[in-house]
Amino acid sequence: MAKSINLENLTMGVCYYPEQWDRSLWESDLKHMLDSGIRAVRIAEFAWNKFEPVEGRFTFEFFDAFLNAARKCGMKVILGTPTATPPAWAAENYPEILNARKDGVLYRHGARRHYNYNSPKYIELTKAVVEQMAEHYGHDDTVIGWQIDNELNGQLDEFYSESDTAAFREFLKAKYVTLSALNKAWGTAFWNQDYTDWKQVYVPRTTSEDSTNPHEVLDYIRFISDSLCRYAGMQSRILRSLISPNQFITTNGIFSNVDNHRLVRDSLDFITYDSYPDFAYALTADPKHTDDLNDRKWSKHLTEVRSICPNFGIMEQQSGAIGWNISMEAPMPKPGQMTLWSMQSVAHGADYVSFFRWRTSVMGTEIYWHGILDYNNRDNRRLAEVRDIHGKFEKIRAVAGAEYRASFAVVKEYDNVWDAQYDVWHKRVEEESQKGWFNASQLTHTPMDYLYIQEDTALEDLRKYPLLVYPHATILKKQTADLLKAYVQNGGTLLMGCRTGYKDETGKCRMDYMTGAAADICGVDLSEYTFLGTGDDKIHVLWENSTVEAAVFNDVLEPLRETVEVLGVYDGSYYKGRPGLTVNKLGKGKAYYFGGAFSQETAALFLKKLGVASPFSALMDAPAECELSIREKDGKRYLFVLNFAHRPVTVGLKQPMLDLFADRREEGKIELKEFETKVFLL
Amino acid sequence: MAKSINLENLTMGVCYYPEQWDRSLWESDLKHMLDSGIRAVRIAEFAWNKFEPVEGRFTFEFFDAFLNAARKCGMKVILGTPTATPPAWAAENYPEILNARKDGVLYRHGARRHYNYNSPKYIELTKAVVEQMAEHYGHDDTVIGWQIDNELNGQLDEFYSESDTAAFREFLKAKYVTLSALNKAWGTAFWNQDYTDWKQVYVPRTTSEDSTNPHEVLDYIRFISDSLCRYAGMQSRILRSLISPNQFITTNGIFSNVDNHRLVRDSLDFITYDSYPDFAYALTADPKHTDDLNDRKWSKHLTEVRSICPNFGIMEQQSGAIGWNISMEAPMPKPGQMTLWSMQSVAHGADYVSFFRWRTSVMGTEIYWHGILDYNNRDNRRLAEVRDIHGKFEKIRAVAGAEYRASFAVVKEYDNVWDAQYDVWHKRVEEESQKGWFNASQLTHTPMDYLYIQEDTALEDLRKYPLLVYPHATILKKQTADLLKAYVQNGGTLLMGCRTGYKDETGKCRMDYMTGAAADICGVDLSEYTFLGTGDDKIHVLWENSTVEAAVFNDVLEPLRETVEVLGVYDGSYYKGRPGLTVNKLGKGKAYYFGGAFSQETAALFLKKLGVASPFSALMDAPAECELSIREKDGKRYLFVLNFAHRPVTVGLKQPMLDLFADRREEGKIELKEFETKVFLL
Amino acid sequence: MAKSINLENLTMGVCYYPEQWDRSLWESDLKHMLDSGIRAVRIAEFAWNKFEPVEGRFTFEFFDAFLNAARKCGMKVILGTPTATPPAWAAENYPEILNARKDGVLYRHGARRHYNYNSPKYIELTKAVVEQMAEHYGHDDTVIGWQIDNELNGQLDEFYSESDTAAFREFLKAKYVTLSALNKAWGTAFWNQDYTDWKQVYVPRTTSEDSTNPHEVLDYIRFISDSLCRYAGMQSRILRSLISPNQFITTNGIFSNVDNHRLVRDSLDFITYDSYPDFAYALTADPKHTDDLNDRKWSKHLTEVRSICPNFGIMEQQSGAIGWNISMEAPMPKPGQMTLWSMQSVAHGADYVSFFRWRTSVMGTEIYWHGILDYNNRDNRRLAEVRDIHGKFEKIRAVAGAEYRASFAVVKEYDNVWDAQYDVWHKRVEEESQKGWFNASQLTHTPMDYLYIQEDTALEDLRKYPLLVYPHATILKKQTADLLKAYVQNGGTLLMGCRTGYKDETGKCRMDYMTGAAADICGVDLSEYTFLGTGDDKIHVLWENSTVEAAVFNDVLEPLRETVEVLGVYDGSYYKGRPGLTVNKLGKGKAYYFGGAFSQETAALFLKKLGVASPFSALMDAPAECELSIREKDGKRYLFVLNFAHRPVTVGLKQPMLDLFADRREEGKIELKEFETKVFLL
Repeated sequence: MAKSINLENLTMGVCYYPEQWDRSLWESDLKHMLDSGIRAVRIAEFAWNKFEPVEGRFTFEFFDAFLNAARKCGMKVILGTPTATPPAWAAENYPEILNARKDGVLYRHGARRHYNYNSPKYIELTKAVVEQMAEHYGHDDTVIGWQIDNELNGQLDEFYSESDTAAFREFLKAKYVTLSALNKAWGTAFWNQDYTDWKQVYVPRTTSEDSTNPHEVLDYIRFISDSLCRYAGMQSRILRSLISPNQFITTNGIFSNVDNHRLVRDSLDFITYDSYPDFAYALTADPKHTDDLNDRKWSKHLTEVRSICPNFGIMEQQSGAIGWNISMEAPMPKPGQMTLWSMQSVAHGADYVSFFRWRTSVMGTEIYWHGILDYNNRDNRRLAEVRDIHGKFEKIRAVAGAEYRASFAVVKEYDNVWDAQYDVWHKRVEEESQKGWFNASQLTHTPMDYLYIQEDTALEDLRKYPLLVYPHATILKKQTADLLKAYVQNGGTLLMGCRTGYKDETGKCRMDYMTGAAADICGVDLSEYTFLGTGDDKIHVLWENSTVEAAVFNDVLEPLRETVEVLGVYDGSYYKGRPGLTVNKLGKGKAYYFGGAFSQETAALFLKKLGVASPFSALMDAPAECELSIREKDGKRYLFVLNFAHRPVTVGLKQPMLDLFADRREEGKIELKEFETKVFLL
Repeated sequence: MAKSINLENLTMGVCYYPEQWDRSLWESDLKHMLDSGIRAVRIAEFAWNKFEPVEGRFTFEFFDAFLNAARKCGMKVILGTPTATPPAWAAENYPEILNARKDGVLYRHGARRHYNYNSPKYIELTKAVVEQMAEHYGHDDTVIGWQIDNELNGQLDEFYSESDTAAFREFLKAKYVTLSALNKAWGTAFWNQDYTDWKQVYVPRTTSEDSTNPHEVLDYIRFISDSLCRYAGMQSRILRSLISPNQFITTNGIFSNVDNHRLVRDSLDFITYDSYPDFAYALTADPKHTDDLNDRKWSKHLTEVRSICPNFGIMEQQSGAIGWNISMEAPMPKPGQMTLWSMQSVAHGADYVSFFRWRTSVMGTEIYWHGILDYNNRDNRRLAEVRDIHGKFEKIRAVAGAEYRASFAVVKEYDNVWDAQYDVWHKRVEEESQKGWFNASQLTHTPMDYLYIQEDTALEDLRKYPLLVYPHATILKKQTADLLKAYVQNGGTLLMGCRTGYKDETGKCRMDYMTGAAADICGVDLSEYTFLGTGDDKIHVLWENSTVEAAVFNDVLEPLRETVEVLGVYDGSYYKGRPGLTVNKLGKGKAYYFGGAFSQETAALFLKKLGVASPFSALMDAPAECELSIREKDGKRYLFVLNFAHRPVTVGLKQPMLDLFADRREEGKIELKEFETKVFLL
Repeated sequence: MAKSINLENLTMGVCYYPEQWDRSLWESDLKHMLDSGIRAVRIAEFAWNKFEPVEGRFTFEFFDAFLNAARKCGMKVILGTPTATPPAWAAENYPEILNARKDGVLYRHGARRHYNYNSPKYIELTKAVVEQMAEHYGHDDTVIGWQIDNELNGQLDEFYSESDTAAFREFLKAKYVTLSALNKAWGTAFWNQDYTDWKQVYVPRTTSEDSTNPHEVLDYIRFISDSLCRYAGMQSRILRSLISPNQFITTNGIFSNVDNHRLVRDSLDFITYDSYPDFAYALTADPKHTDDLNDRKWSKHLTEVRSICPNFGIMEQQSGAIGWNISMEAPMPKPGQMTLWSMQSVAHGADYVSFFRWRTSVMGTEIYWHGILDYNNRDNRRLAEVRDIHGKFEKIRAVAGAEYRASFAVVKEYDNVWDAQYDVWHKRVEEESQKGWFNASQLTHTPMDYLYIQEDTALEDLRKYPLLVYPHATILKKQTADLLKAYVQNGGTLLMGCRTGYKDETGKCRMDYMTGAAADICGVDLSEYTFLGTGDDKIHVLWENSTVEAAVFNDVLEPLRETVEVLGVYDGSYYKGRPGLTVNKLGKGKAYYFGGAFSQETAALFLKKLGVASPFSALMDAPAECELSIREKDGKRYLFVLNFAHRPVTVGLKQPMLDLFADRREEGKIELKEFETKVFLL
C-alpha cells in the first residue's frame, strides 16, 4: 500500500461546502478556483443530511449536481464520508451513539464529533451511508479520493459512553483473557482494586481526586486508539471493496490518543494534515514572549506528520484568521504569511496543499474561521496571495515526491507519548526535552526526523541516522531495547536522557536496574534520582570544557561495567562530583546516558559535540530566524530557506545556486523580506 | 402608562424583613425609620411561606399585623410578590419548577431564584399567591405599590429545565412556523445540524467544546428575555386587574438577558434599580489599580437605568458593607460614601432612594450584606449619615421629576448587547469601546445618555442629540439603518466604529458589503480587517494634527462614493497609509466611520473634535475626579458636583450660584471634602 | 483510657504492603527492616480482598503467612482494618455504599475513600470484616495494635450520598426534635427556606451560586464529624469486645471536618499522624518565596496532633519523594532532611516513628510516593539515613513519654475552625492570625500549644498557661466564655482579637453587644468595624512606643466599664485616634482586646509585651532559622535544636550541656550543619 501521496506535481486544492451556499454560486466559485490555480476541492465531510435526510432514505441529487458542475469545469473532487456530524434524527432517536463526559453526561447534537466509535447503532448507520456513497461515487472520474470522517479524535479524544465500556471489556478480554491476568497487569493489589467479574470493569469514571489506576489508563488510551482505528478501518474496508483503485483513501489529522502509524497502515493510502500556524498569534498568547518559536512550531507538527508518511498532503492550510464565535481570536495572516506557511508545509514533505477554505462561512460556530475570500465574496489580498503561491508552486512543481533529509532523529513510541500525558513525573521531563530538541534543531539548522518505533520497525529504519536521541524512554520494551542495541553495535550513536527504562509495558515499575533494559545498552544504573525543586539552584554537568544544564530531573549515574566512561559529573547539590553523563562503547557504536532533561542549549551542545550540527554551513550562512531544509529526488536537491522573522534578514550563499522562484543564479549575500521563502536548486 | 416614578418630592425608603425579627421590634423599628426621614418600606419579596405555608392554604395574619403597625405609624409600604423564593414544599413536590444547569442537574431549594419562568406548575402557583395577595392588599391605603418578584434574572440568567425546552419550542414555532425556516435562520447547513422534527430542538445542552450554534444562542437569549417578560407580565396583569390604580407596579433590577425596556413597557409603571457601588472596593479587586473608575462606574449603570425610565427609583441603595458568607468581602462604606452614592443616584434621575436594609440580617447567606444598623441594633454612624442625607434631600426635594441633560448618546440595541456576550470577536471591541466612551464622558465632564433603539423608537428620540455614537453595530437591521440615515439627513452627526454591519438579525454574516447597511450611511466598504495581535504594535489613525489610537481591531476602509472624505489614514502595519477614518456628507448631516475600537483617549478626542465636549466649562472648572451633571425642571437647573476622590478637591465657580445644601451663594474657588457632593441651583 | 502512646522507648516502625510483593520477598524484607532498627510494621489497611475475596467468604491464609514470617523474625505488627478501600464487588453490587459529588454523581471504584460512613450496607460489610479479623488476630501476640481504616476523611471530607441525607435527617431530629426548632436554628425565615416536612431536608445540594444556608452548613460539618466518629466507634467497639487488652487501637490522621478529640476520646487509645513535610517543596510551590516557613510548618500540624494526645505516634513519616502519577511532583528529601523531619516529630511529642514505606510501590497511583528503598530494591542513601536515625533514637530512647513544654497556648474550638471554612469574613482574619501566631512562636523561640476547648475542658487545663490567645472567637458560647472569665479571674492573661463573639452556636449573629459574651470579659463593645480594603493603607495601633499592625479587619472599641483601660488607638482611616487595644482588669488577671487580626510581627510584639517570649534565652542563643523545644520527664529536660536552614548555623550555649548524640558536654559556640538536629540534656 502506498505510504505517500505521490502526486506527479506539487498541487493546490481547497475546501468547499456546497451545502452552505446557494447553488447558483457553485459554478462561478469553481471557475474562480481553477482560475486561481486550484485543482481539487474537498467536500461533504459534514453533510450527512444531504445524503440521508431521513433514516434509511438515501438521495444523491444534491452532490450529483455539484459533481456535475465540477466535471463541467474540470475540477477534481475529494469526498469526505460525513460521519463527523451525525444527523439530528440519529442523536435524538439513538442517544447510545453519543459520547459522554467522564461523569456520564452525554454530549448532545449541535456541535461536532459527539458520537462514539463503539456504538453498534452508529457503526450500522455509518456502514449504510458509506456503502451508499461508495456505490454511487466509487467510479466517478471526478472523484479522485476519499477522506474518512473529519479530524478523527479532534474536539474529543476521550470516550465514556456505555458503548465504550462494553467495547473496552472486549478489548481487555482479548488482551488478557483472564481477569487474573488483567489484575496482575494493572497492579490491582494496590488500593484493593482486584476485579472478580468483568462487569466490574469500566472505562474511567468519576473517582475521588479524579485518579484512575494508571495502568488501566494506559490500556484505556490504547483502547481509544484501537477504537478509532477499528472505526476508520471499517469505513476503509467498505470503500476499498466498492471504489475504483484510482481513488485514494486518506483522512485529515493529526490528533491525540491515536496511533497514526497504524491508522495509515491499516486504512489509508496516506495521511493529510490540517495546518494552522496562526494559532501562534491568537490573542490569548503573546508571541513576543513565547519561547516555543511561535508559528515555526508547526514545523514540529509537520515533522510528526512526515514520520507517518514521508510525503503527505495538507488538507487544510491556513488561509485567513482563525476563530470560533466563543473562542480563538487571532489576527489575519499578514502579507506573506500564507506563502510562508504553505512553503513550510512543502519544505517538510507536503506534495498537496489544500486551503481551508474557499470563502469564509457566513453561519455557525466557525464564522471567524476565515477562508480565502471574505463574506463579501470580493477578490482580496489573500486570493492574490493564493495566485502567487500557485505561481511559486509551478516553479518547484517537480519537488513532489522528493524526500526530506534529516541529520538525526528523535526516537518516539506511542507508549511513552501516552504515558507522559497522565504521568506528571514523565510529562515534566518530556515537555522540556521535546521542546529542547526541536528548538535546537531549528536554531542550529540541523534538520531532524521523528522515528516512531513500531512493531514493524527494522534496523535499517534506524541506520538511516548517524545519531538517535531517545530523551526519556520511560517505558522501554525488550524489543525496542534490542533494536537500539543492534543500532549501536552496528556503529550508531545513541543518546538517552534521565528517567530511562524504569517502567515496563504495563506502566508498572521494574524491580530491576532503575535504567531497566537500558542498563544493557548504556551500562549504567542509578544511585540517586530527584526532581529539581523550585527552591533549588540550576544543576549542570561538567563535560570537558562545557557546562551542560541538566534540567528538571537528575539521575545520578553508576557505571556497571568497564566499557563505560564517565564523561561528566554534576556541579552542585548533594550529588556534586558524581556522574551525570556517561558513554558506553558497544560494538562499533556508542551509547550515551545523560542524567537530566534536555534544555534547548543542552540539546544544541549535544548536536555539536556529537558531530551532526549545522549540515548546511558549507552551503550557506543563515541567521537563526530562518528555517533551512532540503528535499531530494533523482539527485536533485531543493534547499528551502524560510524567513520566520517579522523583518528582512540576510543570508550568505557560499556557492552559486539557482533561485527557482526568481529563475536566477545567486551567490553571496542576499536579502529575504519578512516572511519570504526561497527555494534553491543545488 | 407612566414611564417615570414621578413622585412629588425626592423621597427616602428602606427595605425591611418583618419575618426575620421578633414582632415586638416592628413598631419601634418603624418609628425609628420615620424619625430618620424614611417614608416607605419594601417588604415580603422572600416571604411566600408567610402567605401560603401549605399548598393552597393562604393566610394574611402575619403581614396584616405588620401593615397595621405601619398604618399606625404613618409608614407607607411597597409589597413584593414573593416568587423569588418558592417554598420548600413546592420544590420538593414539583421538581419541574426548578431551573437546571446546562448539563441537566437541578438547582435545589435553599438559595434563591432557582425556579424557571416556564413551568406550568410554577405559573399556576404564582398566579394563586399573587391573586390572593392582590385581592387582600390591592386596596389597602398603606400599600403604595408592588414589586414583582425580586431581581428577575439575578443569580441565574440562563435556564435549562425541561419546561424551558418545551417553551423554547413554542417560541420558535411562533417565530418560524416551519422547521425549514428555522433551519435557514440558524444556518443548520453548517455542521449538519438540520432539524427534521421539533422534538429534536432543545435549549442549549452539553456539547463538545461547549459550543452551541450561535444563531440558536441569539434566539435562546431572546427567548430568555421573552420568558421573563411573559412571567412578569402574567403577574402584572393579575395585579392590574385587582389592585387600586393608586398603587404602582415596579420591579428591581437591572440584570442581563432581558429587554428591560419591553419589561417596563409591558408590565411596569417604572423600574427601580439596586445600587451597590461598594462592589468596586471588594477585596478581590484593587481600586488603586483599576481603570474603570471604581464606584464611579455605577454612573454607567444608572445611565442604563435612565435609558429605560428617565426618572426612576432606587429600591436598594447601599447602606453598609456587602458580603455573603461564601463570597464578596468588602469594607464598610467610609463616612460620606453613602451620601455620595445616594447623590450619584439622584444626579442620574432617581426620585426615590430606598436603603438596603434597615438592620443587618443576623441569619442566612447574607449576614454580611449590611444594612444601616448593625446586628447590635444601636444607633450608629451610618444611621446618622442617613439622617444627614434626609436633610440634604429636603434641600433639593423639588428635583423630583427633573430631567437629566446629556450632550450626546451612545446607541445600543439588545441584539448587539446579546451578540457581544457569546461572540468573542464582538465582545473584545465592545468592551473596549463601552469603557472608552463612558470614561471619556466622565473625565471630560460631557454627560451622556444611552439610546436603545427599539421597535417604537422614533426619529425625534434621536434628534434630541447633536451626536450619536454607535460603536459597533455588528448586527445592523434595515429599520435601524433607516432611522440612523434619517437622523443624519436631518442634520445629525453619527459616528460608527469598526465591525459595523456585517451580521444580519439572525447573527449570520451578510454576503454583501462588509459594512452591510452602513455602506449606505457611511459610504464605505472594507478592503481588509484584522484583530491587533498581542505581538503587534499599537496602530493609530493620523487625523489632522492628532494621532488617534485605533484599538483592538482595524477595518481598512474603502470609500464607495464621492461624498466620502478620507479624514485619516493608518500609521502602521501592512495597511499603513490606507484609510482608517472617513466622513460621509449626507443631507444636512455627517456620518463618520472609524476603523478601530474606541479607547478612552480616542473617545475623548472625538468628543472634542465633534464639538460636544465639556458643556460645563463656562460654568465651572472641575478636576477629572469629580462627576458633573445637570437635572432640569420647570426652567430650573440643578448642577450636581460629586467628588469621587478620596481627598479634598477644589472647583472653580465661574459665575455665582446657589449652594442648595448650604443655602448660600457661592462664586470662585471652593473646596469639596473627600466624597462630598454639592448641588447648585443655576 | 490511655491518652498517649506511652511506649517505654522511642521506637521505629515502617509501613508495608505484603499484597504488593512476591511472598518470597517477605522474609528478607522483614530481616532487612529489623537490621535497620525497625521494630514494627503496619499492614493490611488496603487489603480487604485478601480477607474477603467474595462477599461473605472469609480467608486468612494470606496474612497468616505474613504474620508467621513476622513472628519468626521477631517483628511486631500493626493491623489496619481494610475499610478505606471497598472491594470491587461491593461497589458494583451496592452503589449505595458510594459517596457522591454535591451534584449527585457517584465516586466510583478504583481510587480510595469513595465510600460513605452512613450506608447501612457498608456498615454491615464493615462489621463483618472487622469482626472476622478481630476474632482471628485479636489474641495474636505478634499483633501489637490496630489501625482503624486509613486516613479517615482524607481525599474526601464531604458526603452527599442518599445514605448521608437519610442519616442527616436522623441527626437533626435527634438534635432539634421538631422542624420548628430546626427552622429557628437555621434562620429559615431568610430566603423563605422554612421546612414543613422532614423529607424536604437534605445534605447540601446544587444551588444557585452554590450557596447553602450557613447555619445548615455548620450543622452539616458537625454531622460529617459525627458520622466519622460513629463509624470509627462502631469498629472500635467490635475490636474492644474481641481483642486482647494488650493490643492498642489507633488511627492515622489528621484530617478536616472531624472532631479529632472526640474521635480519640470515644474510640482510640491514641492518635497517630502522617507527616509529609516534603509537600513544602512540591514543584507547584516555590519555597524561596513562601512565608509559611515551608517544612517547618509541619511543627504547626504536630502542635495540633499534640493537642489531641500529648504523646502520640507517627504512622507515616516521610522517607522519600512524594507524588501521585497525576499530581504532586517533589524532589527527594536531601541528606539530613529525613532525620530533621523525624526529629521534628519527636521534638513535638512523638514516641513512635513509622516510615512510609519500606519500598516504593511499583504499581498504582502512588508509584512516585516513595518509600525508603527504590523500585530496584538496592540499599540506598535513604536506608543508610534510617539506620542513622535509629542510632540517634537509641541515644534519646528515654524521651518516650516526656512532655512538651509550651510557654502559651492558642485557644481553639471546632465550631470556630469549621465556621472559618465556609465564612469568608471569618476565614480572612483566621488565616492571617493562625499564621501570625505560629510564625511568631517559631521565630522568637516561644513554644506554643493549641488548647481546644471541649465539653470536658476544665479550668485546670487553662491554668497551665500564663497566656491564652483566642484570636477570633467568632462563635463564643456561654460555657466557653465562663471558662475564659474564670481563667482571667484566677490570674490568667487572655488576649482576644477582632471579630470576637458576634455569633451564637448556630452561627447566627447576636442582637446584643457586637462582642457578645466577650463584653463581659474584655469590657468592650464596638462602635465601628470594617475590612481593610485593597485600596486602603495599612492601619496600626499606637501602643506605648510601639506601632502594632492591625491587619485585615478593624474593630473600633468602646469601653463599657471603668476597669477598662485604652492601651492603644488607631493611627489612620476615619477612626484615627479611637481605641484599638484595651485591657480589662478582672479579678487577678487581665483580658486584652485587640481590634485587628494578628500578623507575625504583631503576634511577636504581644509575646514580648506580655512577658512570655523566648524562654530559652538564658540557655542558648539561636538564630531564627532553628526551632527549639523542650520535652521533660522525671525531672530530665531534653532540649531539641532543629536547624531548618539549608546551610550551617551557629548556636551559642550559655551553660554547659550534654549533647546526647555526640555523648559530649558542650558549651559556647557550636555549629549545626544544614538540617542538623541536636538534643541536649539539661
